[in-house]
Amino acid sequence: MTREVDVAIIGAGTAGLTAQEIVARKTDNYVIIDDGPLGTTCARVGCMPSKAFITVANDFHKRIFFEEYGISGANVLRPNYSRIMARVRMLRDEFADGVIQEMLPFMDKLIRKRARFVDPNTLDLGDEQIRANHTIIATGSKPCIPEKWKPYKDVIIDTDQFFELSDLPEKMAVFGLGAVGIELGQALHRLGVDIIAFSRRKSAGGLTDPSLQSYAFEHFSKEMNIKLGTADIRRKSGNGVVVGCESGEWTVDRILLATGRCPVVQGLGLENLGIELDDRGMPPFDPDTLQIKDLPVFLAGDANGRKTILHEAADDGSIAGYNATADSICCFKKRTPMTITFSSPDIAIAGLSYRELTARGVAFVTGNASWEELGRARMILGKAAGIARIYANRKDGRLLGAELVAPAGEHMAHLLSWAVGAGLTAADALAMPFYHPVLEEALRSAFGQIMKQTDDSAPDFELERCSEDPSIRKMKRPRMSPVRGCSMNSLTQYI
Amino acid sequence: MTREVDVAIIGAGTAGLTAQEIVARKTDNYVIIDDGPLGTTCARVGCMPSKAFITVANDFHKRIFFEEYGISGANVLRPNYSRIMARVRMLRDEFADGVIQEMLPFMDKLIRKRARFVDPNTLDLGDEQIRANHTIIATGSKPCIPEKWKPYKDVIIDTDQFFELSDLPEKMAVFGLGAVGIELGQALHRLGVDIIAFSRRKSAGGLTDPSLQSYAFEHFSKEMNIKLGTADIRRKSGNGVVVGCESGEWTVDRILLATGRCPVVQGLGLENLGIELDDRGMPPFDPDTLQIKDLPVFLAGDANGRKTILHEAADDGSIAGYNATADSICCFKKRTPMTITFSSPDIAIAGLSYRELTARGVAFVTGNASWEELGRARMILGKAAGIARIYANRKDGRLLGAELVAPAGEHMAHLLSWAVGAGLTAADALAMPFYHPVLEEALRSAFGQIMKQTDDSAPDFELERCSEDPSIRKMKRPRMSPVRGCSMNSLTQYI
Repeated sequence: MTREVDVAIIGAGTAGLTAQEIVARKTDNYVIIDDGPLGTTCARVGCMPSKAFITVANDFHKRIFFEEYGISGANVLRPNYSRIMARVRMLRDEFADGVIQEMLPFMDKLIRKRARFVDPNTLDLGDEQIRANHTIIATGSKPCIPEKWKPYKDVIIDTDQFFELSDLPEKMAVFGLGAVGIELGQALHRLGVDIIAFSRRKSAGGLTDPSLQSYAFEHFSKEMNIKLGTADIRRKSGNGVVVGCESGEWTVDRILLATGRCPVVQGLGLENLGIELDDRGMPPFDPDTLQIKDLPVFLAGDANGRKTILHEAADDGSIAGYNATADSICCFKKRTPMTITFSSPDIAIAGLSYRELTARGVAFVTGNASWEELGRARMILGKAAGIARIYANRKDGRLLGAELVAPAGEHMAHLLSWAVGAGLTAADALAMPFYHPVLEEALRSAFGQIMKQTDDSAPDFELERCSEDPSIRKMKRPRMSPVRGCSMNSLTQYI
Repeated sequence: MTREVDVAIIGAGTAGLTAQEIVARKTDNYVIIDDGPLGTTCARVGCMPSKAFITVANDFHKRIFFEEYGISGANVLRPNYSRIMARVRMLRDEFADGVIQEMLPFMDKLIRKRARFVDPNTLDLGDEQIRANHTIIATGSKPCIPEKWKPYKDVIIDTDQFFELSDLPEKMAVFGLGAVGIELGQALHRLGVDIIAFSRRKSAGGLTDPSLQSYAFEHFSKEMNIKLGTADIRRKSGNGVVVGCESGEWTVDRILLATGRCPVVQGLGLENLGIELDDRGMPPFDPDTLQIKDLPVFLAGDANGRKTILHEAADDGSIAGYNATADSICCFKKRTPMTITFSSPDIAIAGLSYRELTARGVAFVTGNASWEELGRARMILGKAAGIARIYANRKDGRLLGAELVAPAGEHMAHLLSWAVGAGLTAADALAMPFYHPVLEEALRSAFGQIMKQTDDSAPDFELERCSEDPSIRKMKRPRMSPVRGCSMNSLTQYI
């Protein structure tokens, strides 16, 4: 049996479902093919249950400050791991069910089978074939487990498995200090699990600025047990396992594997697309149009291996959905980049990272913000820590990006990435309101430092005069010239 | 004895000290006159100790969710009022001492006496006179206690006295649901003090949008005992006092008076300035230059009765300091307005309020954001509440202001007021990054609703195309024409 459709979407995750929304504006003749669990990676095993878990750990952690606040009895508080995990699963189920509820209007388009390309326009589903004018691959990602560790599968817990735990182990190794490793590792530590975390580099949460990398590594090392080195699994030991790195070996009950996620592309028959795949089996694709070569096939979301961030996957889905139903292929500008690790303090990159700016050879200056001595941060025990590095164009002080380790860093990251996206200069930012006492106030000194280092002469007064005198400072707006060509990120116009 | 100076600053609070900083750039021949306690209203009795107090109350409050999180033992937690208050005072002393430390370099300019105008250029200090080319009045504000309640002074606690309490009363009435009333009232309630709060209007925290006013009033009424009516003091009762409103009367131990602050202008000899004062004894002044009539006298900070907000007082100090040392009087544009009440959820106004927009006859549309069902808010028990009303120009969707009751509302208020200040439209805001899962995501639907209501046709796609096609949406920037005249707020250019 062969069905003919305008668009076939492989994968009903965030990218696939966003693509569906856009595709459905243009055609009713489409299918979504997914044989896995529904509800999205984010809601089932990713951002949602992890935030629910972290919330409990952070609230429990606050007890260590209660005595100093003047609240007694904190030593009696006890976490019940099985109840904590059960509540996390209950929330997770609600979030995943919510996604499925939203799928009800187009459930007739959902095919619960596995798809495999026969050629760029044909998908084999086993007992039927789909002829599709356009296909969107949105198969997502999964935790990568290196071949050599497969024999230890029963002591390794990946993020697909973590939230299924009915209890927490006493001793746990955490492999990797990226977003997942630091978020779950810190939460486990705060709930009383004996954690040993391993990181190959003196960094955390994907930071790229060397001074911030060491700050973060040292800050989190003060709270939890972190080893610098290449983690490895040595041998089984009773019900547990011996892990190690250059500096020693330790016996733990389980290993939380947080070394990254890999695109799900195996078994999709990409070798039948008639194009060359790279070493990892990935096809070439245009990051701005998501088109694979000149084929009527688009690669969206985690499956394309660019980033594993929900809002980027959703944007990918939109772009793929648009291009799969448009008369001609369009390229789209990316949003101002932003990544957040929900640790305490949060780790975030807003706009361009130090590494990106350096790689592009941009002439930039840096301003530092610190929460170590900020009044509001000092009132809240445990919050008086954090540093932001804010990068701006050396010529005119236009904000380009920031890396930070900060209390309420998720909110600072939004403010800073919006400021970058709006094309504000450091002087513009200083003319914005800062309430008192708020954590945002720490940013002021960074903006001030930037102004002192830029080539354009800095105004000596934050407020704008009411005047028609053209010599006084006005809000400098981004140039209005449209961005040329498809390959440019919207930020590059400011550089 | 008569001393001649370029500038005399009366008051060493936030406005006076900021004025000093600007004045000292131009002249060394100035004095600061203050016979009261040093350290600023904010640090001694205002924003700082109140935030320290609220922090403890909110952390203690979280225990009611511990059982549901899976943490046992919360019923044993007990607040020790005297230790809590002692810690708040310790922090307060640190903050106030910090201010005094920063004054050390110019302590020789500080005169610890009371000043009284003899004429616009002469101040009488009792045993000496100051002849000043320019004078800045920055005498601040104090809690207003109505004449009729003065006999009850021993049962009334105002904010000057609150943080001196060595213990907390068992039963307390709170008069007023402005920022101070709702912040301290909620914190007292959360710490277990039996609170009865009175508000004349169905509102809280200075909200002006009718729908938000009722939402806030009802939301806070669910948590604490709030009576709608005009609070009055009926009679003493033992060591306590009977308070009442239209709907009944109640006996409490003490009354927290949070009905507002009044400018400190009595005894300054303003009647000797040769100008007419209003009913309250206030002189006329230009809000943009802070000059009193055409005199060489400026009125800055809380003393001018405009707002009692630290960052506005600091801006006032800068403007007054600038104008007191400039060759000609300059007018300055205000920052985008913002007020925040640090309740849970926070209450805030960012940009222009509903009342201001309505009074100015602006054609605006409104978008609603809600945190009631937002995923991230639901994970954190007690946080799934809140509404924002975002106002935008009806024609082009340019953001003008917002009122909100929201979790992390202090951060939402910064994001929104910066978006207003940067001249973003709702479409621009939707093209900004929103991470997942964050509380900022709730704002998206408000921006979307605004776009549907504006006259200009809304793009059907959040992302911008890479294209030179002029018909596609580009970031619409504020008009670059300078603001004309002194009396215009920088926001008016968008209306």
